[in-house]
Amino acid sequence: MSLETPFADALQRKIDLKTKPPGSLGRIEALAAQIGRVQSSLTPRMARCQLTIFAADHGIAEEGVSAFPREVTRQMVLNFLGGGAAANVFARSVGVGLQVVDAGIAGAPMEVEGLIDRRVGAGTMSFLNGPAMSAAQCAQALGAGRALGAEGDWDAVAFGEMGIGNTATAAALGHKLTGAGLEQLVGRGTGLDDAALNHKRAVLERATARTGELAPAQALAEYGGFEIAMMAGAMQGAAAAGRIVIVDGFIATAAALAATRLEPTCRGAMVFAHRSQERGHAVLLEALKARPLLELELRLGEGTGALLAWPLLKAAAAMLNEMASFEDAGVARQS
Amino acid sequence: MSLETPFADALQRKIDLKTKPPGSLGRIEALAAQIGRVQSSLTPRMARCQLTIFAADHGIAEEGVSAFPREVTRQMVLNFLGGGAAANVFARSVGVGLQVVDAGIAGAPMEVEGLIDRRVGAGTMSFLNGPAMSAAQCAQALGAGRALGAEGDWDAVAFGEMGIGNTATAAALGHKLTGAGLEQLVGRGTGLDDAALNHKRAVLERATARTGELAPAQALAEYGGFEIAMMAGAMQGAAAAGRIVIVDGFIATAAALAATRLEPTCRGAMVFAHRSQERGHAVLLEALKARPLLELELRLGEGTGALLAWPLLKAAAAMLNEMASFEDAGVARQS
Repeated sequence: MSLETPFADALQRKIDLKTKPPGSLGRIEALAAQIGRVQSSLTPRMARCQLTIFAADHGIAEEGVSAFPREVTRQMVLNFLGGGAAANVFARSVGVGLQVVDAGIAGAPMEVEGLIDRRVGAGTMSFLNGPAMSAAQCAQALGAGRALGAEGDWDAVAFGEMGIGNTATAAALGHKLTGAGLEQLVGRGTGLDDAALNHKRAVLERATARTGELAPAQALAEYGGFEIAMMAGAMQGAAAAGRIVIVDGFIATAAALAATRLEPTCRGAMVFAHRSQERGHAVLLEALKARPLLELELRLGEGTGALLAWPLLKAAAAMLNEMASFEDAGVARQS
Repeated sequence: MSLETPFADALQRKIDLKTKPPGSLGRIEALAAQIGRVQSSLTPRMARCQLTIFAADHGIAEEGVSAFPREVTRQMVLNFLGGGAAANVFARSVGVGLQVVDAGIAGAPMEVEGLIDRRVGAGTMSFLNGPAMSAAQCAQALGAGRALGAEGDWDAVAFGEMGIGNTATAAALGHKLTGAGLEQLVGRGTGLDDAALNHKRAVLERATARTGELAPAQALAEYGGFEIAMMAGAMQGAAAAGRIVIVDGFIATAAALAATRLEPTCRGAMVFAHRSQERGHAVLLEALKARPLLELELRLGEGTGALLAWPLLKAAAAMLNEMASFEDAGVARQS
């Protein structure tokens, strides 16, 4: 019995006295209980949410592991800043704020208004023959993320990413963190055909064979990406600040796995938004004992799945705060 | 090739030119296409939604088929009007309007402010030994529903229900409409234990054995409920008025099945919100070739699942209307 038990019991009792058959709101009830626990409150607030999109480039993209050219990272950042990407549209639709962070886009700094500069470098190195980043760069990315994750007055935060090549990165990192085979982790990303998928798998076999078992921080430096490391730090920072962390798809779940391997206590703040179509997502979710809320066959990233889960969090907290009890409403209970 | 093909192609082309890998928004893309088809528009509006809750009582509740006493129908109507039920809380949370209709609550008319009176009777008769309602009552309920479904200027409408005993009614009706066995259709409703579940099944075996194969309108009169018949009519009316119809759980899906058996064209307007925990829902969904958007283990009714699906519809339409194309945004396409 942990010290939290009386509080968790009080939360569950409050949920059970609402005017509905016990348990009949299913996963919304469990979500309400989690929100209450994270905020240590029987009347949690779930009104303000922000999405932060971390963008970076990946040296491994040089090896032909993506269906899109590398310039697309930069072009999509301009699309986010212009408000035209799926993440922008969904964020407006569900009432969530959005900011974009340059965690390490290739080439010169973009110097465009509205882009938050936390550049760790001009893209990672290819991890085919050596580490993606140095230990110092990894620590820098994690630290910058932790600070960003703790900023502001949000009830929940969501994280998205943009980085051509980052499903390859997430697969390699996931392989080192879980030990699962690459055949379970490597998928089509933005839309590889069979030949390109085989090539991607072969590249990752070679790349991951050059190291043995690695500690989580080592795995993140060897095979991570700047946006993934920074997102992992942001998840830690937000969890430590008592916020719900809405975890998006394959890349974000790789970051969540790295974050929890480095700091296990941040797992309790995480809500897993959706099950992605990208092959490796299921393996990473299982490693985190996570069951996502939505299954909509998304595979876009950017935080799009996290945004679609936000209304469920709001509804869960509203149930706890606003719904009448049997006594309040004068409704007879189960016979 | 139907006459709709060029328009459906234009819709799909618009979706495919958005700045994302083709198909990467999964079921949101299919939803956007459905919304466009229903409104015959490449720029559909999905801004205004209303939930109508139909309440009625069931003679079959006298046979001890529910875990809650019959008075709860009336008490919950007061809870809806007071704003304290789950449906109210979710409706406010997702920005949907709510109205409550007395389709045939037992006892004297309630005469409370805000309750819309479309009473067909003071509850149905028990269908254990005779029909639940007359053919004239069934036609009256359908007609009142059709008129209500066509009212207002909504882009989408959702329907909920309240009626102690109505999972028994929906199981019997579903059995007659699909031919599926009662063992697949009869579930625990608001929370029956094993003994009560066996009793419910035995009651329904007896009740359904007294008739053979029935035409849809006959099945609805013999084994339906006033709220189910009125909801079926409302679905027909809303579909005919070019609105998206958001279908909730087990009871609402029984109404949707009756509506489509009577008027097959209304199926195209229906979006199935969620897969309920109530046992028979899967059978009814299959009969409608429907794949719900959400799977959250809900089993409350009231339209709660439909409300939680509304933000997905809004997001899907916003994607179609607001998201940049590759050309707009100057983003390179797949190599």
